[in-house]
Order: sequence, then C-alpha cells, then structure tokens
Amino acid sequence: MAGRDLRTFFEPKGVALVGARRNLGFGYGIPVILKERGWADRIYLVNPSVDELHGLPVYHSVSEVPDPVDLAVVLTPAPVVPRMLDEVGERGIRFAIVESAGFAEVGETGGSLQAEAEAIARRHGMRVIGPNCVGLINTANGFSTVEVIEEAFRPGPTSIIAQSGVFGNCLLDLLHEYGLFVSKAVTLGDRMDVNECDMLEFLKDDSETGSIMMYLEGAADGARLKETLAEITRLKPVMVLKSGRTPAGRAATVSHTGSLSGEDSLYQAVFTQTGTLRAGNLENLVEMARIFSTQPGPAGNRLGIVTGSGSLGVMATDTAVSYGLEVPPLPAGVAEKIRGEAPDWMNVKNPLDVGPSWMFSKALEALLEEPDIDMVLAITIIPYSVFKNLRENGLDGRSWFGDIAALRMQYPRKPLVVCAVGHSDFVSHMGEIAGPNVPIYISPEPAARALAAHHHYWTWRLGPGDGGFRQCY
Amino acid sequence: MAGRDLRTFFEPKGVALVGARRNLGFGYGIPVILKERGWADRIYLVNPSVDELHGLPVYHSVSEVPDPVDLAVVLTPAPVVPRMLDEVGERGIRFAIVESAGFAEVGETGGSLQAEAEAIARRHGMRVIGPNCVGLINTANGFSTVEVIEEAFRPGPTSIIAQSGVFGNCLLDLLHEYGLFVSKAVTLGDRMDVNECDMLEFLKDDSETGSIMMYLEGAADGARLKETLAEITRLKPVMVLKSGRTPAGRAATVSHTGSLSGEDSLYQAVFTQTGTLRAGNLENLVEMARIFSTQPGPAGNRLGIVTGSGSLGVMATDTAVSYGLEVPPLPAGVAEKIRGEAPDWMNVKNPLDVGPSWMFSKALEALLEEPDIDMVLAITIIPYSVFKNLRENGLDGRSWFGDIAALRMQYPRKPLVVCAVGHSDFVSHMGEIAGPNVPIYISPEPAARALAAHHHYWTWRLGPGDGGFRQCY
Repeated sequence: MAGRDLRTFFEPKGVALVGARRNLGFGYGIPVILKERGWADRIYLVNPSVDELHGLPVYHSVSEVPDPVDLAVVLTPAPVVPRMLDEVGERGIRFAIVESAGFAEVGETGGSLQAEAEAIARRHGMRVIGPNCVGLINTANGFSTVEVIEEAFRPGPTSIIAQSGVFGNCLLDLLHEYGLFVSKAVTLGDRMDVNECDMLEFLKDDSETGSIMMYLEGAADGARLKETLAEITRLKPVMVLKSGRTPAGRAATVSHTGSLSGEDSLYQAVFTQTGTLRAGNLENLVEMARIFSTQPGPAGNRLGIVTGSGSLGVMATDTAVSYGLEVPPLPAGVAEKIRGEAPDWMNVKNPLDVGPSWMFSKALEALLEEPDIDMVLAITIIPYSVFKNLRENGLDGRSWFGDIAALRMQYPRKPLVVCAVGHSDFVSHMGEIAGPNVPIYISPEPAARALAAHHHYWTWRLGPGDGGFRQCY
Repeated sequence: MAGRDLRTFFEPKGVALVGARRNLGFGYGIPVILKERGWADRIYLVNPSVDELHGLPVYHSVSEVPDPVDLAVVLTPAPVVPRMLDEVGERGIRFAIVESAGFAEVGETGGSLQAEAEAIARRHGMRVIGPNCVGLINTANGFSTVEVIEEAFRPGPTSIIAQSGVFGNCLLDLLHEYGLFVSKAVTLGDRMDVNECDMLEFLKDDSETGSIMMYLEGAADGARLKETLAEITRLKPVMVLKSGRTPAGRAATVSHTGSLSGEDSLYQAVFTQTGTLRAGNLENLVEMARIFSTQPGPAGNRLGIVTGSGSLGVMATDTAVSYGLEVPPLPAGVAEKIRGEAPDWMNVKNPLDVGPSWMFSKALEALLEEPDIDMVLAITIIPYSVFKNLRENGLDGRSWFGDIAALRMQYPRKPLVVCAVGHSDFVSHMGEIAGPNVPIYISPEPAARALAAHHHYWTWRLGPGDGGFRQCY
C-alpha cells in the first residue's frame, strides 16, 4: 500500500541534509537537533562550500554521501531544488522532504518550479513531502526535521498532520502544556506528492498512533479523502480543523499553501458522513484531542457531575445537555453513600454540589463506581486564599478532592475529566493531582463538550452504520 | 435613587465584623485582609466570647461598637443571623452584608429563616446584601469582605456582579492572569434584598466603572432587569453569563442560589433587545471583557489582519467574517508601504501574511495608520527555537513584531488586539510587549470574535434605535 511505503520518512537508516549551512536557519538548526537526539552517525550534511559544521563532516555533493542513506532533507533556496532532487534521485535515495519555500504558494513562477521538481521526482520514482513545510518528527526514535523543544519529544498516542509548516511547528511548541504528547507529526506544505490521504493511510496502520489531529486548508483529492476517512475513523478517532470556512477565508488559503479549499458545506458533509470530528477552532481541536488521547470510550451518555461550585455545575449541565448528553437524577446507589455523611445544606442531586464540605473525594468515587453513570466530570474549585491555608497546614488538593490519578487507575473503564477553575497555581497543582491520564480543563463548558464529542464518536464507531454522527463543534 | 444609596456598601466609614473568630473561616480571614489593606482603625470585630484577635480588640456585642460605624458584615451561623441583624439595626447601622449560608438555597427551613431575617431588616430600614455570598471588593479604597489575592486589588475599569459567592471569589483569583482588573466586584447570593438591578443602577452612575461583567442564574425581577439594562447599556457595555440555558441546567440552579431561572428564550430576548452582550460560557465572558476594558469603539467593521502564519490568518478571517466583520482587500495606501520592501514570496493582501520577514512591525503600523481600516488584529507566531535564538542574540519579540504598546499609544482611536500562538514563554513575553492596554489571545478565533462583539455593541450603542443588536456568542 501507498501508506505503508512512507515509513522510511519516519525511520530512515541514513539522512542526507542538503543545504546544511553556517548561518541561522533550518540548515543550521536541524543538524543540531538531530545530533542532540543521537542521530550524529546517521546524518550526512551536504554543502559544496563547507567542510565541517557542528563538528560533523560536510559532503560537497549528494553523490559523495556514504551508505546507508535512504532519505534526503532539502533545505536549499527554491531555484536549486529541482537540481538537488535530481542529484538525490541519482544517488538512489527514494524519499525526500523539501522544506524550501517559494513554490506553488507564491504564484505562477513558483508553480512552474514546483512542476519541474515534481517531474524530476516522478522520473526517479521518489516520494516527496513538501515543499514549503518543516517536515516531521517521530518521538519513538527522536528523528526530527523540525527544530522543536525538548518537551515535544516525549512520546504520546496522538499523531498530527498539518498542512502549514509554521503552524505545525508552533503546535508542537505548545501541546505539551496541555498534556498532549505526540507519536508522529508531519507538515505537508504545498503537497507536491505526499498528501493528507497518504499520511492518513500510513497512520491508520501505525501501531504507535492512537488518534489523529489534522489541520487542513483544502483537500488534495476530495473523493479520496472521504474514502480514506471512512476507513480510518472506524479504527482511530480523527479530529480535523478545516479552515477556509468562509469565502473570505478561502480566498486567503490560496496564497498560503496554494490550495483551493472549495465549499465548506461539502467538507462538513464528508466529515459528518465519515465520523470525522470537526473542531470549530484551534482551542476546540486541542480540548478534544486531550480526551481522545487519554479516556476510554463511554458505555452510554449518562454524565455524573461532582462540583465544588453550584454555578459551575449548572454551566457544565447546560453544555452537556445541549450537546446530547444526559445528566440523570443521582442514582440511588450514589445518593445512599453520600446522604449519611452529607451536611444539612447539601442537595444530594446530580450535579452534586458538595460545596465546602470534605465530601468531594467520596462523591467522585461513588460516581465512578456507579453502573448507571457512564462518565464523570469533576469540577474542582477553591478560593486561592483557602488553598494557601490548606497548603500551610500540610494539606493539598489531594486532601480536598481525592487522589484523582489513583481513582483513574482504579476505574479504568469510565471516562473521567477534571475541570479546575481559579488561580493558575491551583490549576497546575490540580493538573499534577489528576496525573497524565486525566485531561484537565480550566472552565466547565469545554470539559462537558469534549465529553459529548467523545460519547458521540464512540456511539457512532460502535454503532450499526453511517447515520447519526453528531458534531459537537 | 435606590442605586446611589448603595455607596455605603463600598465606602463605609466604619465596619462591624459580626462573627469574627479564632478558627479558620471568613470570620478569621476577613479581619486579616482588611488589616493588611489599611482598615485596622475602621473595623470593629464582634464576638461575645473573644477579647482580642489579630491584635485588634473584640467587642462582645454590636451595641458596644463605637462610632463611626455604618456597615455590618455578618459571618455567624445561619440560625443566629436574624438576631444579629436585629442588633445591627438597633445599633443604627443601615447596611449589612450577610455571608452566612443556610437560607433559601437549602429549602424550606432555610427559606423561613430568610423570611424572618428579611422582616427584621425591613423593620429597621436596612439594605442587605446576601445571604449566602462573599460580599464585595472595592479596589479604589482596598475595602474587601472577601479573602482575595493581592493582585485582585489592582484597580481597573471593569466591575463584576456575580450571583454565586465561591464562583465570584475564584473569578477574582484568575482575572488578573488575563490582564483584567476590577473596580468593584459584588456577589449577591440569595438576594434577600439587594439584587442585580440595584447593583446595575449603582454601577451605572459609578464613575470608576467603565464596563460590567455579570454572572446570573435567574433574574430577581425580569421586567425590571429589562428596563435597567436598557438604560445602562447606552452608557456602559454589560456582558452577562446567564446559566440555566437548558431545563436540566435550570433544575440545578434551584438548589444553588434558590432562584428560579425561567425560559432561556425570554432572557435571550431581553439581552438582545437591550444590547446586553451575552457570553456563551465563562471563557467567552473573559475574552469579551478584555477588549471592552481596553479598546476604543471602532469606526466601522473593516478588519485589517497582519500575521506571521497564513493558517492563523485564515482562521481569523473565517471567524471575523462569520460574525459580521469585513476583511476588505488591502487598501492601496497600505499595499504601497509594504510592496517596496516585501520579499518576492510575500502576498501583499489582507490578511497580510508577512511570514518570516522582518516586516511585521511595518505592516502593523501601516494598518493602524490606514483610514480605510477600522480595527487591527496582529497575529504573532514564531517557532520557539527561533524565539530562543533571537533572545540569545540580544533581540526579542519587540525587535520582530514591533513595539506594540507604543503603537497602541500612538494610534489611540483604533481597536487593536494581539494573538500570540505557541509556547507559554513566548505568549507571556508578547503579553509584556503588548502592554496592559492591548488584550492578548492565545488563538485567533477568540480574538476575532471579541472584535466582532466590540463592533456590534458600538454600532448598536451609537446607532438609531433598538433594532439590530447582534450577539456573537
């Protein structure tokens, strides 16, 4: 299959870096990052006028690069890219990533340059990612053709396909702050050859990829996109941020990655028919990805809410119900466990507002245990002054809200998400207590909406057919 | 007017703290915070069984409190609140804040206790805030009946009315992180007497309040709310987060602040007819408040976008256009200034994607200067690796994106917002460069949507009549 053929991009035996250079830029930085990641003996720097860089030898042409080498990363100015691709092909290298900009995205001249490069690649039977991209990262082996921060190399179950280079790069800069860790990420740029469908097919069979985030401006091939999505979403959730929703937005995409994005309603139909989760915006994409990368599928749509603030419980309920979840009356089993110890002022209902009592942890566990509750939202809130007092007295969020990470382990089959509202110290403290396997949101609505998206995806995936997929964004 | 009468709550001459105590809780913490804020000689602690607390004398009954005293803060358990209010009234104090919980929000017994307290207050001609609240803060004089962090005392132009105590308190814990600073904030709780309309009337005439954020579960008096809003929104923007949008959410509000919230469509109609900005959720409320507290009204709906990433420009355009802004072709005046220096690959359009050129600052200023552009969105993005290189070379975001705070001062009449996407270090660095008078958003859609809300409010306010107010959330 075409998809499987792409593995060399992520697991090359040897890599020629064509256009390594002494001045700041990709050609300077990428060798550094690969060296740091233990790739020094598998990268071959190429530049006709340099002999040594970062303590590594520099070859004067691709033809001089020794074996084994099966991938070239091209970093030269656009005008020489066709010639470089020819040399890469002559050297017997069949995979190339072209990061150089100045092709289809800049109009006619760039377009013919790209056609020239494409013809050369085809003649050599090469697969090419780019041009106008930052290539890819594979956290499993530390291979990266993009200068990203240390934290981006921590492996996780999510893979990313992004059309835009800068945006893909900056996404990798920020995802770790949301507890999102990546298996593979690839930016496609002007898609001279490899497109999002090729990558989706590859990731479908990639055992390290559990879910997929995609940023798309326009499909390279609409019919194939639909077919590909239909296959993959039965196996892995695919979340897509598709821009160019409006005519003005579409006009802007043309000059960016040279893609024509077409009518939004067509995309919307493709996504909904194939069970592809569409994010309304960047924040939605991230908030969704966090639940899909950590939580099991729910058994049904019955949401149990425990909260330290009645207001936030109401907001979560509004959102959950609006997106098709049920917030049922508190099951008798849970009510019994709570009532005995509950203070007079507590309304033992769902959402369960435990207020300033010490019953948060008990209530949370009761909801996780309860068979008539399918998923749980824990809304943690505490005035910062009270939080500081707790800490001064040797207590912390764990004393007040329970050992959420441990509860996650204890009840592994029920989705659990946490909302923490307040001072950023408190929020990050709660992030630690929730641990890496529970997503934490800073307001109740995104938490409830992510749960709803999660439910609708799993209902669709495990359900009988194509009908009834519900978008939540 | 009823509204103006409430000033004593915010500017008391002397305050009796009824229920000051040695153990952790409001009665312990509030005297501390007032002392820290320079109120030691204007507060009188009251507790029959304590002689001294925090180095302050404690009076054994309200009747012993010396003059001047015009406000009581009641912190005792609920059952003794009616008796305490009676003593407060006997002492000649006409303003009281009751923070104690256990009234209308806990059902019948609490309800009759509240009725008893209410009758006593009425007999004495008192105005009462609460019960079941955390009172208020006034940053102008440092008066606070709520334990909030230092940062919450920095004065700003926004005032807050919140029904819920805990939520209001935690809002104060986090707003400073978004650059939102407050003039006055008040939590209303069970609204035995003072309600949101009284407070709106007071804030309408308060010269320190420029805009108002409100969290509401249900209106105390729907008809009066409509009248009050209609008056105030012509003078000051009012942003409201109204929960209980769904039947399930409404059911949850009953047990929280004892309020019946009614059909959501009625509220929606009131808000839209009165030009009240409705937030869909907590994050929307905060994102909106930031633009209203810092930016001037725009002259029209023509948005100019400068961006370091084409993708983000497309996303911003999609959102802006969806909510009724125009992203017009780049005016000739701006294009001329840019074209001379622009590299070949740059598409000189709107949104203006300057990519990795050094032209961001020039483009931003050209847009601010241009009479045919009414508001400007600056989307800053830079891979973190590049950002670190800049800093190592003695440069920073100001070198790359321009002195945004200075540009804000130079073009004071045009709304300007910044979006910064990427690593949190980069985002907070950009926050410093943008300065306190430019809101900064971490993704393009909230930025564009806030601009749209801003535009629609000002169009409505300066327009001919009641028709045509457009909600953006």
